[in-house]
Amino acid sequence: MKTAKEYIDSMREMGFEIYLFGEQIKNHVDHPIIRPTMNCAAATYELAEKPEYEHLLTATSHLTGKKINRFCHIHQGLDDLVKKSKMGRMLGAYTGSCFQRCVGMDTLNALSMVTYDADQKHGTEYNKRFLKFLRYVQDEDLMCDGAMTDAKADRSLRPAEQPDPDQYLHVVEEKSDGIMVRGAKLHQTGAVNSHEIIVMPTRAMRQEDKDYAVAFAVPSDTKGIIYIYGRQSCDTRKTEEGDMDTGNILYGGQECMVVFEDVFVPWDRVFLYKEWEFAGDLVEKFAAYHRQSYACKAGIGDVLIGATQLIAEHQGTAKASHIRDRILEMVHLNETIACCSLTCAHEGHREPSGTYFVNPLWANVAKLNVTRFPYEIARFAQEVAGGLMVTMPSEKDLNDPTIGKYVAKYLKGVEGVPVEHRARLLRLIENITLGMGAVCYLTESMHGAGSPQAQKIMIGRTANIDRMKGAAKRLSGINGSL
Amino acid sequence: MKTAKEYIDSMREMGFEIYLFGEQIKNHVDHPIIRPTMNCAAATYELAEKPEYEHLLTATSHLTGKKINRFCHIHQGLDDLVKKSKMGRMLGAYTGSCFQRCVGMDTLNALSMVTYDADQKHGTEYNKRFLKFLRYVQDEDLMCDGAMTDAKADRSLRPAEQPDPDQYLHVVEEKSDGIMVRGAKLHQTGAVNSHEIIVMPTRAMRQEDKDYAVAFAVPSDTKGIIYIYGRQSCDTRKTEEGDMDTGNILYGGQECMVVFEDVFVPWDRVFLYKEWEFAGDLVEKFAAYHRQSYACKAGIGDVLIGATQLIAEHQGTAKASHIRDRILEMVHLNETIACCSLTCAHEGHREPSGTYFVNPLWANVAKLNVTRFPYEIARFAQEVAGGLMVTMPSEKDLNDPTIGKYVAKYLKGVEGVPVEHRARLLRLIENITLGMGAVCYLTESMHGAGSPQAQKIMIGRTANIDRMKGAAKRLSGINGSL
Amino acid sequence: MKTAKEYIDSMREMGFEIYLFGEQIKNHVDHPIIRPTMNCAAATYELAEKPEYEHLLTATSHLTGKKINRFCHIHQGLDDLVKKSKMGRMLGAYTGSCFQRCVGMDTLNALSMVTYDADQKHGTEYNKRFLKFLRYVQDEDLMCDGAMTDAKADRSLRPAEQPDPDQYLHVVEEKSDGIMVRGAKLHQTGAVNSHEIIVMPTRAMRQEDKDYAVAFAVPSDTKGIIYIYGRQSCDTRKTEEGDMDTGNILYGGQECMVVFEDVFVPWDRVFLYKEWEFAGDLVEKFAAYHRQSYACKAGIGDVLIGATQLIAEHQGTAKASHIRDRILEMVHLNETIACCSLTCAHEGHREPSGTYFVNPLWANVAKLNVTRFPYEIARFAQEVAGGLMVTMPSEKDLNDPTIGKYVAKYLKGVEGVPVEHRARLLRLIENITLGMGAVCYLTESMHGAGSPQAQKIMIGRTANIDRMKGAAKRLSGINGSL
Amino acid sequence: MKTAKEYIDSMREMGFEIYLFGEQIKNHVDHPIIRPTMNCAAATYELAEKPEYEHLLTATSHLTGKKINRFCHIHQGLDDLVKKSKMGRMLGAYTGSCFQRCVGMDTLNALSMVTYDADQKHGTEYNKRFLKFLRYVQDEDLMCDGAMTDAKADRSLRPAEQPDPDQYLHVVEEKSDGIMVRGAKLHQTGAVNSHEIIVMPTRAMRQEDKDYAVAFAVPSDTKGIIYIYGRQSCDTRKTEEGDMDTGNILYGGQECMVVFEDVFVPWDRVFLYKEWEFAGDLVEKFAAYHRQSYACKAGIGDVLIGATQLIAEHQGTAKASHIRDRILEMVHLNETIACCSLTCAHEGHREPSGTYFVNPLWANVAKLNVTRFPYEIARFAQEVAGGLMVTMPSEKDLNDPTIGKYVAKYLKGVEGVPVEHRARLLRLIENITLGMGAVCYLTESMHGAGSPQAQKIMIGRTANIDRMKGAAKRLSGINGSL
Repeated sequence: MKTAKEYIDSMREMGFEIYLFGEQIKNHVDHPIIRPTMNCAAATYELAEKPEYEHLLTATSHLTGKKINRFCHIHQGLDDLVKKSKMGRMLGAYTGSCFQRCVGMDTLNALSMVTYDADQKHGTEYNKRFLKFLRYVQDEDLMCDGAMTDAKADRSLRPAEQPDPDQYLHVVEEKSDGIMVRGAKLHQTGAVNSHEIIVMPTRAMRQEDKDYAVAFAVPSDTKGIIYIYGRQSCDTRKTEEGDMDTGNILYGGQECMVVFEDVFVPWDRVFLYKEWEFAGDLVEKFAAYHRQSYACKAGIGDVLIGATQLIAEHQGTAKASHIRDRILEMVHLNETIACCSLTCAHEGHREPSGTYFVNPLWANVAKLNVTRFPYEIARFAQEVAGGLMVTMPSEKDLNDPTIGKYVAKYLKGVEGVPVEHRARLLRLIENITLGMGAVCYLTESMHGAGSPQAQKIMIGRTANIDRMKGAAKRLSGINGSL
Repeated sequence: MKTAKEYIDSMREMGFEIYLFGEQIKNHVDHPIIRPTMNCAAATYELAEKPEYEHLLTATSHLTGKKINRFCHIHQGLDDLVKKSKMGRMLGAYTGSCFQRCVGMDTLNALSMVTYDADQKHGTEYNKRFLKFLRYVQDEDLMCDGAMTDAKADRSLRPAEQPDPDQYLHVVEEKSDGIMVRGAKLHQTGAVNSHEIIVMPTRAMRQEDKDYAVAFAVPSDTKGIIYIYGRQSCDTRKTEEGDMDTGNILYGGQECMVVFEDVFVPWDRVFLYKEWEFAGDLVEKFAAYHRQSYACKAGIGDVLIGATQLIAEHQGTAKASHIRDRILEMVHLNETIACCSLTCAHEGHREPSGTYFVNPLWANVAKLNVTRFPYEIARFAQEVAGGLMVTMPSEKDLNDPTIGKYVAKYLKGVEGVPVEHRARLLRLIENITLGMGAVCYLTESMHGAGSPQAQKIMIGRTANIDRMKGAAKRLSGINGSL
Repeated sequence: MKTAKEYIDSMREMGFEIYLFGEQIKNHVDHPIIRPTMNCAAATYELAEKPEYEHLLTATSHLTGKKINRFCHIHQGLDDLVKKSKMGRMLGAYTGSCFQRCVGMDTLNALSMVTYDADQKHGTEYNKRFLKFLRYVQDEDLMCDGAMTDAKADRSLRPAEQPDPDQYLHVVEEKSDGIMVRGAKLHQTGAVNSHEIIVMPTRAMRQEDKDYAVAFAVPSDTKGIIYIYGRQSCDTRKTEEGDMDTGNILYGGQECMVVFEDVFVPWDRVFLYKEWEFAGDLVEKFAAYHRQSYACKAGIGDVLIGATQLIAEHQGTAKASHIRDRILEMVHLNETIACCSLTCAHEGHREPSGTYFVNPLWANVAKLNVTRFPYEIARFAQEVAGGLMVTMPSEKDLNDPTIGKYVAKYLKGVEGVPVEHRARLLRLIENITLGMGAVCYLTESMHGAGSPQAQKIMIGRTANIDRMKGAAKRLSGINGSL
Repeated sequence: MKTAKEYIDSMREMGFEIYLFGEQIKNHVDHPIIRPTMNCAAATYELAEKPEYEHLLTATSHLTGKKINRFCHIHQGLDDLVKKSKMGRMLGAYTGSCFQRCVGMDTLNALSMVTYDADQKHGTEYNKRFLKFLRYVQDEDLMCDGAMTDAKADRSLRPAEQPDPDQYLHVVEEKSDGIMVRGAKLHQTGAVNSHEIIVMPTRAMRQEDKDYAVAFAVPSDTKGIIYIYGRQSCDTRKTEEGDMDTGNILYGGQECMVVFEDVFVPWDRVFLYKEWEFAGDLVEKFAAYHRQSYACKAGIGDVLIGATQLIAEHQGTAKASHIRDRILEMVHLNETIACCSLTCAHEGHREPSGTYFVNPLWANVAKLNVTRFPYEIARFAQEVAGGLMVTMPSEKDLNDPTIGKYVAKYLKGVEGVPVEHRARLLRLIENITLGMGAVCYLTESMHGAGSPQAQKIMIGRTANIDRMKGAAKRLSGINGSL
């Protein structure tokens, strides 16, 4: 297993083509906007080394029997699923941010099942290829990006109906030694912090869309892959002097637009190709796992609740009944998120491939709550924090020889607490409710792993409404049974 | 184990003193208002006999190794806790009502821990007495009422401060062979369907309240115990001809005011007496278990969702997007309830006594959601059902030779569905959202196992806010640790 | 203008054909279930006589210049519209129930505009006929039922597509002196408390539905009209001895299924016939007025808030911060309802006919809030009231010589408040949140004047989204204008 | 009246002492962060000149009979109050931001009443002084900042209890020609866009706090006043090249910390001093007016709804039923805000001073809704907008010669809409839900004009709960009256 330092060193060796604010970035590892996001990913290596987190962050490979990072692991039992939920929350609280590595884990697990199922039906050898790749990932302790969302252009059109055929990533040429692909994947979390990028289709496909039914993995710095870094609320604060105004002084999230401009994929890295009827299954399997992963938001919720409680104490309001009520409400909503993610894990099951899969109904319920509760929690945090969160002068003002004394005097809270602490906490709350953290805690909670309507649709498909109808018939005196 | 018939026969032999509508009820077993509630309790016996429910409804006694009804069981592992949650939901769906037997189960489990802990501290022998009683309950397969809520009069006063000392049940005389108690327990669910009544204090006590710190069990028909039956919305529909207008044609819930007018309790049935510092602990332990028990509301939610889906189909609206949306929202909220109850079970732990205890934070979160979501689910059910639910003529009108034809003609829905089905489903939805079922699905969801504020207080006590504060400090640059 | 007594006497003289619980009711005026609903209607006469309510309950006829009951009035200015909203809330608080007369008022006002508009287009004389009828209604101070909702059977089919042509009320024969109609109107509020019944179409019509595009008025006891009384939650409590358990001891609501079995309508009572393109307009105009009318629910909210505050005082919890918070939340939601109803009145306008019409956007917004907030208010009321609301013994138990003393002892609240007061308030809260009052306060709030989706659709039609798009374009730098 | 250009020129002549990011700003008028906020204020001048807005933006002075800007006007009737609400919404839609001038208007109106009332009681001449000042403001068409919120330090302590006496602004020296004051006012909206700053106490005072009971006005650039500019989410985007990434290319909001370091106020500018019993009244009067002013948020809501509808059209999702539903829900919530603000105006009344005052109950209800609904509207906007809002590359990337073509290709929406439009709309939605606009639309909605708990307290004081209790008593059979 890699140490955090080894991980970061390995990133230096990658030859990414990255653009940010219209400029190509040569040393992305030390870039002030990118580095905090890499620190997040590095935390998944760092904590795996610490004895107190080992039980969560590591697992035993079913391929090699070796200790591996859990993010490279294929779930071998319910305990693995449960630990995944708990690891997510823990890391969310540790980073106050998106640590980006879950998407790769979820992709690996989904592929472990769907390649197996496709092989069973079509006599293909996708699973064999996949397991070879998996072993490499485990042995090298790699971080993988799982790339799903296509550009889509007009969303009311299917892939093959789009005027521009590249709006969904597709195979443009089939060669003897592999395939050439073109297209783009949007919203790629942790893209330039990853060693490998694993591509999946973004939706269920029909016969006519079969060139779009492709899954594969390539090293993230493969020729033809271009990363265009997405900007976030308050991103440039990371480039300012000082650290206070960033709110979260250590970590951040990252999303890129990833362009595939005729990228070559050798056959042994192709995990699905033209078996269009498995595209939807791969999406659903990945999505269910990834919806479970949003347990991390309960961890960010922990940070926000902690900050909110502290700021109330600093301002002398912590004992007011209405403030106390808001904080308990935040806890309640946050724990409800945690419960749903844990339940879909505890109530998972074994699939034919041997991989353990979460309960898909409850995974979707978990995520649908995540599209709502963080917004309420953030609102309560802002209520308790007070308006100062958005009117406070900058760190430079606080430290200024001329006016710093005024800022310090008039931002003081209760006796005995440094002004700087109050300022830092307010910036952290700003970060999570409006700034870079809000990208992750709010908007990503809404759309990551699928927008809320996608969850509703899956809830409709997985709930046993027929059984409910039977119960209603029986009790009302219509012939029916539970 | 008793069969359902044996249970009902055993009820006939009890000598209860019951009053209903100002009259003493002699044959309560066959009383049209009481019998449906007894059918509910009987279902806990009936299903224990059925192979398909045996895994949920039965367990192996840790005292005797015999197969016993789960409602008499002391949880011996996490699996027991999880099955309890699942059994509750299943029975909720089976009865569409409150089956009343969980309160006794939760009382037995709480006493199994607290009697042990009290003995450890005080050298008393409460646990030994309790285990003897437990074995009797298990061997005879008895239904127990757990009686907690006192009358309280002015709730801003503590027990010993009340002008009338009987407002909290207390010991009025200590004798050589036992104690005499006086007071009343309100809201006693399933009281006259129970063989035994187990009394607990209703709140934490102080030294000065020690005469109120008493727990014991007596047969439910002990001399001096008077049951005054509480009335419910639409209760007298059970006494009308026909069954359609009752909505739930089989089952119902029951709550009584139970007066203890100088009731004698022999020493071997006394499980706590004057150890006031354990009163609060007993309340909290019982409450956490009982808050888990509200998984049953997800079962009633199943019935309501099933009825709502059916009525939409009958009315030709099931495919309308807004109707579909409401039903999926109902499912989502209902499954969120289920998730929280399951999580507090899966994440329980072993107490010193050997009994497994639910995670109290998540048990409280579960119940707090139950005080909210059923009201929203009921609102959506009414939205989909339409106004007919409250304007439909009676069963007598539908069957009337003169006007029945009009009722039938103008209540028709889509082709091919009998009018009677529509009427029955609307009455079932009325039952659960306004009638006898609403008592159980709404008001009891609000106040049973403690009102929402009680859950908020416990959430505040059990959440690890210090850890959250540490995380916030670390990320904002104040010295802190996760 | 009629006095309340004269109104009730006039009801005695009507020859209705009414069925209730399968029996024909001969003296409906003194029927224990019907009379409280008639008392509600009578209140609209009674208060018109009282000086302190005269400004709200009376108006000056634009036809005759005489003082008339406002319920017979055509709005002649914004002040009339505003007084209508205030009258509704006041009467809601006075009766705690549905006083039933607004639907006739709203029908008269809608017809005053649509008959005028149809005449302008088609050269018909509907408005002349209507004004003659209106003058009769004003002179005699009549209560009118406005009948809109058809049976509809399969709601996914249009009128002319239904297998049974009578599922929407329609003209079955055209005669020299009038028309014969057949069909049924459901959910008819206050039907057997009305002198006249005014029929309207229930939806927009197309050419092929033109036989369904009919509006007219007939005396409510016209031959061929049959009233089948709808049953409500807890309706039979009105037939029990005592009054306490009814909760609202004075008033109640009423809905009937009204069957038109070949009813003759003379031409001078026909206000629309075959001009199908005005059917939708009539529905929308009526609906907007009627959605304004739901200001009455703020009045019922007043009653519920008052009862909730009193019960908190009786139980010693009124000063607890969480209880105080719930009551203020109830007030806030209730006043929001009131604000929206007032705004659509204050911001109304004059139509070509001279009638003043409410702002339709805000009338729909008002009603959409009414489909939500009463449910939340009711939930808070139940939270504050406590579980006793659904477990309390009956009035007979409280008055029983044997057990009444126990009931009284153990239902006592704070010192100095009679137990009976506590019981009466709990029954009132039960009435409004689960019983007869809940039919009116909850389900009718949901579906009366159209279900929530109908309001959403109208909000979409009446909001100026193009203007909003212009503002967004301008600010984002796309060519646009406010 | 000043033109917009004259207003901006007048700002150039002011001698403010302003600090931003630790530097003193000399030419604040042209500062890229400050100028957009000044443009907002200038809009209140600009639109007053335009015929189509004249009816909203201008009024007739009751002092001089001249046409004046409405922001300098004392409300002389209900029509003035209503136009104020409508002007607020219109300007909110015009600027998509906080135009800052309402706080001065609300301060002037509150002082017009409270100075009068204080004079009536104490025989002082505050009103005379005030009217002289008012006339100057009207004649010169000045923008005034109303300064209320003190620093407060430990909020659980009263002014006179604070260890640092300056935590509430107070009089430090009384001179023959005036007073010297010291302290600070936080969150001062539009401070450095104002000609005058009017100071008020921030809370009700007691006898011992009388030195803190002071109200006065001074020119904003008076010696001793120091402005420390508060930073906002994404503020530095205004300093970047291009305009697209700012979202709102024209306008922005502004809040400053304003330090009063021994500032001299001549007697004729002192409007309250030591009459501590009027401090609370001034706060409440100002607060009620200012809570009405939040009608502007309905205008920002208009912008956000417009942007959301456009982005749905650009992405091909506008006809999906769930997208349509979210947009209608946004409209509904937004119009509910508008209704409440309008009602408190329509239902205002004349105070003894002659000034018209809003209905305080409904003004508080209006604001309490504003602390909630914008957050929900913002959430729905993010749901419809999709994740691209937070992952989209920068304007520089879109315009880059190398990679711009990829960005353009893969950000395309439906045919026929320029990519730039999509990008601009997403940035506008980002602005209002996370960026500079969110400061104004969300956090300011929460805390401006007082935090939600302040509104709840005022709702409790102004609602007629006794009348509600009377209604409940009467209907339940306890002696009571409506």
